[in-house]
Formats: sequence, structure tokens, C-alpha cells
Amino acid sequence: MSQPDAPGSGPHVRIVGTGLIGTSLGIALCGKGFRVSLHDTSPTAVALARDLGAGVLAAEVSDPPWLVVVASPPDVTAPLVAAELEAWPSAAVTDVASVKGVILTSLTQLGGDLSRYAGSHPLAGRERSGAVAAQADLFEGRSWVVAPGPEASAAAVTAVRTIAEAVGAAVTVMAPDEHDAAVAAVSHVPQLAASLVAGRLRDLDQEAVSLSGQGIRDVTRIAASDPAMWTQILTANAPAVHAVLLAVRSDLDAVLAALADLGAETGDEPARAIGARAVLARTVADGNAGQARIPGKHGAARTAYATVVVVVPDEPGALGRLFHDVGAAGINLEDLHMEHGIGQLFGLAELAVLPAAVEPLTTALRALGWPVHV
Amino acid sequence: MSQPDAPGSGPHVRIVGTGLIGTSLGIALCGKGFRVSLHDTSPTAVALARDLGAGVLAAEVSDPPWLVVVASPPDVTAPLVAAELEAWPSAAVTDVASVKGVILTSLTQLGGDLSRYAGSHPLAGRERSGAVAAQADLFEGRSWVVAPGPEASAAAVTAVRTIAEAVGAAVTVMAPDEHDAAVAAVSHVPQLAASLVAGRLRDLDQEAVSLSGQGIRDVTRIAASDPAMWTQILTANAPAVHAVLLAVRSDLDAVLAALADLGAETGDEPARAIGARAVLARTVADGNAGQARIPGKHGAARTAYATVVVVVPDEPGALGRLFHDVGAAGINLEDLHMEHGIGQLFGLAELAVLPAAVEPLTTALRALGWPVHV
Repeated sequence: MSQPDAPGSGPHVRIVGTGLIGTSLGIALCGKGFRVSLHDTSPTAVALARDLGAGVLAAEVSDPPWLVVVASPPDVTAPLVAAELEAWPSAAVTDVASVKGVILTSLTQLGGDLSRYAGSHPLAGRERSGAVAAQADLFEGRSWVVAPGPEASAAAVTAVRTIAEAVGAAVTVMAPDEHDAAVAAVSHVPQLAASLVAGRLRDLDQEAVSLSGQGIRDVTRIAASDPAMWTQILTANAPAVHAVLLAVRSDLDAVLAALADLGAETGDEPARAIGARAVLARTVADGNAGQARIPGKHGAARTAYATVVVVVPDEPGALGRLFHDVGAAGINLEDLHMEHGIGQLFGLAELAVLPAAVEPLTTALRALGWPVHV
Repeated sequence: MSQPDAPGSGPHVRIVGTGLIGTSLGIALCGKGFRVSLHDTSPTAVALARDLGAGVLAAEVSDPPWLVVVASPPDVTAPLVAAELEAWPSAAVTDVASVKGVILTSLTQLGGDLSRYAGSHPLAGRERSGAVAAQADLFEGRSWVVAPGPEASAAAVTAVRTIAEAVGAAVTVMAPDEHDAAVAAVSHVPQLAASLVAGRLRDLDQEAVSLSGQGIRDVTRIAASDPAMWTQILTANAPAVHAVLLAVRSDLDAVLAALADLGAETGDEPARAIGARAVLARTVADGNAGQARIPGKHGAARTAYATVVVVVPDEPGALGRLFHDVGAAGINLEDLHMEHGIGQLFGLAELAVLPAAVEPLTTALRALGWPVHV
């Protein structure tokens, strides 16, 4: 019988830093037959990771690592990578920090054999805050960017790709500055936008806040993220975030000017008002175009699903009963979204299904007494 | 046997404009025993609404209405309200436009008996775009703001409250300018933020866009909204949206200055860098505070739910099977959220349950073979 959690005979991966990412990676790699050794400045943290099945203590391993993964907080990543490169002259070294350019710049200043270094960034686990438990499948289905610098060898890139794919991630190779520009636009600026919009709610009357619908709930969900972590990320990627945010401000200024024109509209400046309305319409239309580029489910092209809306009463088991009935009808749910009523004891479940499934699903649910809207 | 769709003996409500809101309201009010008459400039539209059970044609009713609801596009609302006030000297009149101040200003200019007018705004149906079908329960569990002007009589306010509560909405009474300031902050500015962030994706490489995670998906979901509709809304509420957006730009400028300082950091300006980091941390922390004010499920105080994460394979019925198993375990799902992997054939279902349900739910699902993470 196979024992996936026992030390395998595969390549030796040394993990430095046993937080969420390091421990999850250790557990996942052990399950795939890699031999994982663990190091952390905290003896307590490394012992916990070992007990969770993330690998063995570094002191218990005698052979040098094939690959070192530095999974530390970003502000200490560069010196740790430099130290590992020096300590293990035959090993490839990577890190998992969410900003890549600043690490490479620091490493170039620190000196060392950068042919064996290929930085990387698994896009996983970031949205969980607080005491998050490690997960063996944290990387499954996630993107993992490998961002080699100009000196990186093909072997170093391959080593990182090997472990990323072993734990189920989809690998993308990008230059460090390309990576940083991309995450500025798709992660860091959206975070700031959510924070800025949510911040405006602080001084609002509770009565006004109570008019919040699903739109602002979605826009501001990630505004609940950890300030300390985001300060580190934004600081490390300051130039790229600044560039995208500057473009956003330019667009925003055009909107502000249009709103000012419309607010001051006197009736004898129709041309100006028409121009202002065009700015607003273009802003929303540009948002349509940008939003449509975001990949759909599973990174594939967006499939045109149909939506069936069901009213679900707020009583024990109601949602479970609904999904039982959907399953019993033989329908595969492609996606789902809950919208809660305000001051009422029910919610709306939006079920996304293939268009061909709308008719049988609607018929089946209505026959069982569910209020269904297509 | 009761015939809720037949003309009742209740008060006569005249609905002017049989789009999504007007038709849905007609259907809902007929179901509650009101007598509803329908008017629209389009004979086709009004006939369709009648066939859907929203009421009878206005020509078929002889008695004057008790209440007139103008449910037209916002840019023709004010003249229609004025005409209805004049046509029915004993009726109360309301409208359902999403911006209230501009309507009242126009009505004051048009003249007429404004004691019988109380504007209102049902927060319903807005996020659906395109050919949306009318729904009898469109208003159930939604907020419905009644925004009386200074001349409005208590009787007019009561009439609007009566129909809003009859169709299941939660009524809030606010002054028109208070309403407009509130929706600027909780709806109009979030829409613009989503559009501006999404608009930045237009010029990005597809590879960069492919790094999009759940965060930007949530932030930009409403960026898919209709430009024409939003141009009307933003135009009508230009001053209030401008005020909130100006405050957002002020906060954004502070972030831009901080990022510029950090990007230019030379090492000999540590105090400046510390100040810049403090701006970023405060921005995210302010977002935490604002986001925490948004009411939770059902408008009640936010309950601290625990989250259980389950890996769901992408195969027919998998999600349905999961919810069947949750229901069979006797657990009530409080909320749920799907997160999709990229390039992988499964998703993560985040199940929100009461903290006490975590242990039995986890045990039950694991026993059935589900990969569960708490």
C-alpha cells in the first residue's frame, strides 16, 4: 500500500519559512513523493509544520537540496535567498513573494550566483486572513508565475515549474517586471479601489449604509484584507501600482469633470452636457470591455450560462433542500451566487446552468414548489 | 377558491410605465388584492403587462386611482408625475426613479399640487440587464426608500408605504437629498470604481489578465452594467456623485503620493518612507472599518459565521451532491461562495455556517469522502 505521507525517494526540496504557503507546499509535495526538509527561524513553527506532515526537520537530512523554496515574509526574502544560494552551491533557489522586481534588484545588489535563482509567485491563499490553516490543495487550480531574471538558467526555471505543476498549479513564465505590472492591475489596484470605496462608508449615516446592495458588497469584499500585509505588498510594488493608479486617476478626473459640468448644467450649454454624458457612457462601456476580458470558470473562455433565480426561505436546511432537488433533477450547477434580502427571512439563489438545462431545472423545481424565476 | 390574479376589491393603483419595475409591481399588487390599471405609451408593452397578470388596461377602469405609480425611464419621470397630479386631483402620486432630488426640482419648476406627491425608490432589479422578465417577488426583501419633499402630505407617504410593504419591501423614509447622497456612496461611486478598475484591463496582455483572481472578479462584477442606463443615473445624481468621488480622489491622491515616495526611496529618507507606509496602512484600515459597517444577511447585524471550504470536482451533479450531503447532515447553510480554479476541473465551495456547525459538518462531509478544509 502506498504511503504518500512518508518520506519518498524523490528530489529533496528544502522549504525555508513554514507559514501558510511553506507548510501547504510541504504537505502537497510530500504527497507527491518529494522529500521535503523544513527550516524556520521559529522552532515552534517548524515543529508544527512537521507535525502537519509538511516534511522533516532540516537537521534530520544530510544530503543537499535539489531546490530551495524561500517562503518567508517578503521583506526578508532577498537576504534569505542570497544565504541559501551561498549555502547550497548546487541547488536551484526560488521564492514565493508576491512582488518579483524588488527581490531581484536586492539580490543583484547582494551578489551571488543568480543563474540558480528563479523567483516565482503562486497566486494562492492571499485572500484568507488571520489564523489560516495550511491546505494540501492550496495550489490546485491556481496560477503560479515563474519570473526568471536575465541570469536565470533553464534548469532553475524547470525546477520551479516541476514543483508547481506537481502541486496542481498552472504555470506561467513572465519577466519580473511584467509580473509586477500585471499584479498591479489585476490585484493591487483593485485592492486599493475596494479600500477607497469602503473607506467612504465610515462617515455615512447607518440609515444610508443600510441601502447597500449586492453591488457594493462585491466591490468591497476584499476591503476586509489585512492592512499590514497589504502595506508590505504595495510598498514592494510601489512603482508598478503607481503607474496603474495614475491611469485610473486620469480616467477618474475625466469623470469628475463630466459630473461637474452636468451638476452645473444651466440649459444653455447643451453641447457641454452632451460631451459630459459621453464621458460617463464611455467610462462604463470601457469597464464592460475590460471586465469581459477576465477569464471565466477554470480560466477558459467565458461560457454563456443561463441564470435561474430561486427564492429560498431562511429556515434550517432550506438551501440544502434546494440543492438536493437540483441534484435530484440531474442538473449540473456551473456556478451559484446568493443574494440576501434586507429585513426579510429569505434570500435569492442565482443558479448558473447551461442554457439547455434551464427548462428541465425550472420545471423540476416548480413541481416541488420552489418559486423560480428565469 | 381565491383568484389572486382577478381584479380585487382593494384600492385602485394606476401604474404608468410597464417596464420591469411597473410590470413586476402590478403583478405583485394584483396578488395582494389591489386593483391595478396599466398605462404605457406603447400599446404593445401595456398589453404584454396585462397578459402577464399585472392588471387591466387603464381604459377598462372608470373610477379614479387612489395612488398613481410612475415607473418610467428617469428622464421623463417629472413631466409624467406632473401630468398625473393634474389628471387625478384626489390621487397620491409617486415615482420609482433611482435619483430623487432632480425629480423634485423639476416638479417644483413645473408647478402643481405637490402635497399629493411623495417620490420613492425601490432598490430592486437594477443589476439585471437586457431583456429581464418581470418578477412577482422582485421587491420582496429589498429596501424601498420613500423620499417625500417638504410639501408632501402624510397621506401621500402612507400610500407609498402601503404598497411597498404589501409587496414585501422594507420601507425607509429619507429626505430626497439624503437619499441621493446615500446612493451616491453605496451604489453610484462603487459602480464607477468597478468600471474604472475594469477599464484598465483593456490594454493588458491576455497573459497578464489571466492572473485575475477572485478579488478582481468581485470588484468588477458590476462593471458589466449597461452604459446607457448608468449615464442617465449618474447624470441625474451628478452633484452627489461628484461630492463622494471628490473625497475618493483626495484619498487616492494621498495613496499616489505615498507610492511615489516609496518608489523613489533611496535609503536616506527613512522618515518619509515610514510616513508613506502609514498612509497605505491607514487606507486599507479605513477600508476595513467602512466595509464592516455594511449590514450582513437580512440587514441584521453581521453574525460571525465560520467558513468550511470543500473541493468540488467539475462533473455533473457534484455541487448538487455536496449540498444534498450538507442538507442530509442537518446543517443550515447561512451563505455560500464559489471560487473557481484556473485551468483545473474543480472549484472551491466556501460554506458559511454557524460556528457550532463546523465540527458536525466537517465530520459528516469527510465521512462521505469530501475534501474539507476548515
